[in-house]
Amino acid sequence: MNTNQINEPFYPTQMMRNVHAMHPLVHNITNYVTVNDCANILLAAGASPIMADDIGEVEEIQSICGALVINIGTLNERTIDAMLAAGRTATTLEHPIILDPVGAGASKLRTETAKTLLEALEISVIRGNISELKALYAGDNHTKGVDANDIDAITEDNLTESIALAKRMARHFNAIVAITGAIDIVADSESSFVIRNGHASMSRITGTGCMLTSLVGAYACANPYKRLHATATAVALMGICGELAHASCERDKLGSSSMRTRLIDAISMMTPEMLEQHLKCEVR
Amino acid sequence: MNTNQINEPFYPTQMMRNVHAMHPLVHNITNYVTVNDCANILLAAGASPIMADDIGEVEEIQSICGALVINIGTLNERTIDAMLAAGRTATTLEHPIILDPVGAGASKLRTETAKTLLEALEISVIRGNISELKALYAGDNHTKGVDANDIDAITEDNLTESIALAKRMARHFNAIVAITGAIDIVADSESSFVIRNGHASMSRITGTGCMLTSLVGAYACANPYKRLHATATAVALMGICGELAHASCERDKLGSSSMRTRLIDAISMMTPEMLEQHLKCEVR
Amino acid sequence: MNTNQINEPFYPTQMMRNVHAMHPLVHNITNYVTVNDCANILLAAGASPIMADDIGEVEEIQSICGALVINIGTLNERTIDAMLAAGRTATTLEHPIILDPVGAGASKLRTETAKTLLEALEISVIRGNISELKALYAGDNHTKGVDANDIDAITEDNLTESIALAKRMARHFNAIVAITGAIDIVADSESSFVIRNGHASMSRITGTGCMLTSLVGAYACANPYKRLHATATAVALMGICGELAHASCERDKLGSSSMRTRLIDAISMMTPEMLEQHLKCEVR
Repeated sequence: MNTNQINEPFYPTQMMRNVHAMHPLVHNITNYVTVNDCANILLAAGASPIMADDIGEVEEIQSICGALVINIGTLNERTIDAMLAAGRTATTLEHPIILDPVGAGASKLRTETAKTLLEALEISVIRGNISELKALYAGDNHTKGVDANDIDAITEDNLTESIALAKRMARHFNAIVAITGAIDIVADSESSFVIRNGHASMSRITGTGCMLTSLVGAYACANPYKRLHATATAVALMGICGELAHASCERDKLGSSSMRTRLIDAISMMTPEMLEQHLKCEVR
Repeated sequence: MNTNQINEPFYPTQMMRNVHAMHPLVHNITNYVTVNDCANILLAAGASPIMADDIGEVEEIQSICGALVINIGTLNERTIDAMLAAGRTATTLEHPIILDPVGAGASKLRTETAKTLLEALEISVIRGNISELKALYAGDNHTKGVDANDIDAITEDNLTESIALAKRMARHFNAIVAITGAIDIVADSESSFVIRNGHASMSRITGTGCMLTSLVGAYACANPYKRLHATATAVALMGICGELAHASCERDKLGSSSMRTRLIDAISMMTPEMLEQHLKCEVR
Repeated sequence: MNTNQINEPFYPTQMMRNVHAMHPLVHNITNYVTVNDCANILLAAGASPIMADDIGEVEEIQSICGALVINIGTLNERTIDAMLAAGRTATTLEHPIILDPVGAGASKLRTETAKTLLEALEISVIRGNISELKALYAGDNHTKGVDANDIDAITEDNLTESIALAKRMARHFNAIVAITGAIDIVADSESSFVIRNGHASMSRITGTGCMLTSLVGAYACANPYKRLHATATAVALMGICGELAHASCERDKLGSSSMRTRLIDAISMMTPEMLEQHLKCEVR
């Protein structure tokens, strides 16, 4: 997917204002581990969540929403059918579909389900860690549970190759790819953003990836002609709020569960001005 | 439903003391988004939660509990059957059943399921937002996802008509209705309480409605001959704790996720004296 | 089960260091009420969680993990099959299996499922409250929902008999038993640890038992030849963090939801030195 946005000016603050103005309603078919955090972060960001996964209602629910987030974190046969049904409605209605292939590579069911979704639906954005993305792209399999394997990590040393890989993945999947880790890459087939926001302590809590995927749903919905920019903005927003939350926990001598609370707090208190001030985003 | 309570004195502090003394065990068949908050708020309020939704055990579980809370937030075919089975046991045992028709009007499945439950079971209290209640009552359909639509909002300007509508709904459903929003109305067919506690920031977190519905289960169980009063007390309690939580977050410069934490904190620290002091409840 | 560990020196600090060094990957088939807390506490403790419950993937997921935690808190037909399938794989691979028989005694489904799991699988550790354990052992049935019944409580007065009972249970189930309450007992058929850490306020939040069971999974995995010691360490760790969390909430005048946050915070900030300093553990 070449979204032809690389030569356009990047206005992340406008992206955020559009979310605040639109209050996009985002349909999430997601896992039961982090679903509450996904709902709360959408509300914190100025969007509205709805969670529905019964085949008897997902098409109708999708039709009143503006985006679909599919997260396979605790997939099962019943919900896979619902993902496909909601996804077909979203495809017809041209709603952005965001896929989080949690644990792709860790089981055939996850890998195959993610591939089936990618084939059957018009996925706008795939948000995952590098191991998950590689498992889907090359059949490489270094997935270690639901976390990225260290041997796959994107570093300053392999950044140029990683960007090239991300662009090839975007072309292959015909979707924007958002690969998150210590360094984040958001790419379509032609262009990419490298984002250096975030803090290592975000990996001490569950759901930062899932929450980000839901945020991408809100940002892609409210910025329909700028999905690459919208995705990069959501990724940077999450990273910045991780930095602020970490600083806040350090100051108050708090641990990992407070990090989760302060992260969502930061999202709810973020302004376009703060976003601009903290943004570490490079076009490549 | 005319509960004939309007001319009786209203003792909310006694209602609270009864919950603290009885520790009512409340069976919740609820959604997987806010279920943890529902369990924790019941414990915070001095009650005990049990969550069970398999058809193979819900009747037996209901028989050891004192109330049933049915919340259709993430309903599916399997759990709808369990709601009906548990509800029939609760009806036989004269346990209060509290229904939260989350998202009624947003899909046929939700609207029809809520109606089926209302027909099949003896529901004591329906707790929802005005859009959900209207969708069930009149077939009006302004439901916007799981949040109330602004055009339905109860305001000081339309309060008299809204109260009359609430009483008609109570008669129609043969149940107490608790309509919550900026202004809350708790009504049976003859009488109503208007409650002006609460804070707008409660709408920035998911689950305040679900948590309140679970609280109503505890209060209705511990105050069996005063269900209208018990419901009004639970509604006011939630609103007051929202006010206290908001003030606490403002003071400590915290955001929306801390609001959730501080709200349940406030429930756990609330005393009958504080309830009396903060109560803004009017009989209409 | 006689693990022959009683005469060996007990090095809880080493147990903790082993978890920190190994980052054990723990597969949890658990309830949707407290699943997020279980995931977060594993991360806080230096382990990694994976939650999967579809029959189509649980064997494969188990094979990449090091331990299996089975929690029947919101069991249903679909997940019971997955528990058995994952458990068979874990048994074959000699992964420790930790069983949390939530609400055993409260319904036939729970009691029978727990018994079926105990017969079909090689369970290493059963972690429950005294009422749940008694319901499985003797068919006694004082289970009051998911909390222990007061008439079963382990006190200083009945401690000697309670320890003898725990050892008989361990022999009967051929598993380590960890019975938690105001006083905790961890026993195999020959020996036991009595742990007096913890604080009463832990019972005001849901999931402390479930979280502990997941922690036992991590500790048993990282300390394979010392499962009795590993279980005792995890139980003490949870109790100590409860004490620290309570003190922290008292200091900051916070309530029960903050207690949950501060408990996981304490786990994430715990060091071997602090563990040693606060440990109240007696060999019996």
